Amino acid sequence: MRAEEWEQVPLSEYERLDDLMYRGRRLIQNTEEFCFSLDAVLLAHFPNYHQRDHVLDLGTGAGVMPLLMVDKVASVEAIELNPVLAELAGRNVRLNGLTERIRVVEGDYRQASEFFQPESFDLVLANPPYRPVSQGKHSKSFGVASARHELTATLKDVVRAARFALRFGGHFCMVHLPERLGEIICALHECQMEAKRLQFVHPKPGQAPNLMLLEAVVGARPGGMKVMPSLVVHEEDNSYTEDIKEIYGLA
Amino acid sequence: MRAEEWEQVPLSEYERLDDLMYRGRRLIQNTEEFCFSLDAVLLAHFPNYHQRDHVLDLGTGAGVMPLLMVDKVASVEAIELNPVLAELAGRNVRLNGLTERIRVVEGDYRQASEFFQPESFDLVLANPPYRPVSQGKHSKSFGVASARHELTATLKDVVRAARFALRFGGHFCMVHLPERLGEIICALHECQMEAKRLQFVHPKPGQAPNLMLLEAVVGARPGGMKVMPSLVVHEEDNSYTEDIKEIYGLA
Repeated sequence: MRAEEWEQVPLSEYERLDDLMYRGRRLIQNTEEFCFSLDAVLLAHFPNYHQRDHVLDLGTGAGVMPLLMVDKVASVEAIELNPVLAELAGRNVRLNGLTERIRVVEGDYRQASEFFQPESFDLVLANPPYRPVSQGKHSKSFGVASARHELTATLKDVVRAARFALRFGGHFCMVHLPERLGEIICALHECQMEAKRLQFVHPKPGQAPNLMLLEAVVGARPGGMKVMPSLVVHEEDNSYTEDIKEIYGLA
Repeated sequence: MRAEEWEQVPLSEYERLDDLMYRGRRLIQNTEEFCFSLDAVLLAHFPNYHQRDHVLDLGTGAGVMPLLMVDKVASVEAIELNPVLAELAGRNVRLNGLTERIRVVEGDYRQASEFFQPESFDLVLANPPYRPVSQGKHSKSFGVASARHELTATLKDVVRAARFALRFGGHFCMVHLPERLGEIICALHECQMEAKRLQFVHPKPGQAPNLMLLEAVVGARPGGMKVMPSLVVHEEDNSYTEDIKEIYGLA
């Protein structure tokens, strides 16, 4: 769609239209539900994509990741538990003219076998809830709370769903909190996946990381983890670094 | 000893005397065997020491780590398999007047129960061989080769020895290669230890890390890993960063 056409798209209460700064794509978000943030954009840029890849996005929200990476692969399937977000993701795919490449399913990835063939994907992406239920304050919005806290799916659930969906040798990429690195590595190992690539994201130079991007491979031998140069989000003066501008399409 | 006295200390062939730049301490090293490098100095500065700690150094080499940290704790025991290095470590302790605080044992930490009481230490340090036997070229010197490659002890051996020696709640600090992070976290987990603090060491700003410092706690619950701000060794112009100058006592 052209910019003028986007302006004609009807929005419901609480909905807003965001420019993805990428191929003219836009994304409707619901401000009462979880809205995507830097995490999803960083994760969409993290994998090494191949044109023949069949990709699964576990917990797609409003569908931002598929819209940012579908051109680099053969097809994307995306599952979302929250019906408001799943409907929105489907609408976003239609409005961006990508229904032939992206399929959105409303459902619970803890029952992945109801929706997908086992070991049928080359790559699985996940931007799962970061915090255990016991930790920190929950949002009053169930949509926001379940995107941030493990109310509907735990770390083990997302790892198990990824393992179910991935072929032997397939890759699983996720974004998560550095403080959960140990649990994540052990959960992957228990599901025949080994962490092979890791990148920390630091808010500013010299600060501790507050996010990490991690890639695991099904059936790989242990060892040989590649820890990449860190990504830094802001310069000392709070402007975006060149790395982030490039990822955001601002460079 | 004063500087003039150190100059009278007889050195054997291949031995050299190095200034530790700390409390007037010096260290004799054998240039035919493994000589300490930045790794050991960084590890010696990594733990949070307590004055009542009983500390064990697994594979002490010529004894550099005990000489750099004994003042911060109650006592140090250090074990070394290589008889040339174990004798040297003992001599270094005597020459520095620290025999009452540091005990050096020649022996194999794979048989830790022959030398130490179980669960009797508060803190264990290890700068173990970094590479599996299958990986890379081995040094012709067995002393150097066994310090670099897992000829005499594997990752699991050093983790098991640490677990044997540590009390419940005790801390294990090691320096290792980032590429082995996954294996290390799993090996620790299998021995009831959880990685809780991690610091990457980068040769220069913006480069991938080539070393890491890691702390695990016996009997801790999974989760809550603290990834610290990174240590950078060199500035762009190859001079040492302020962080490293401080650690080396040059600041």
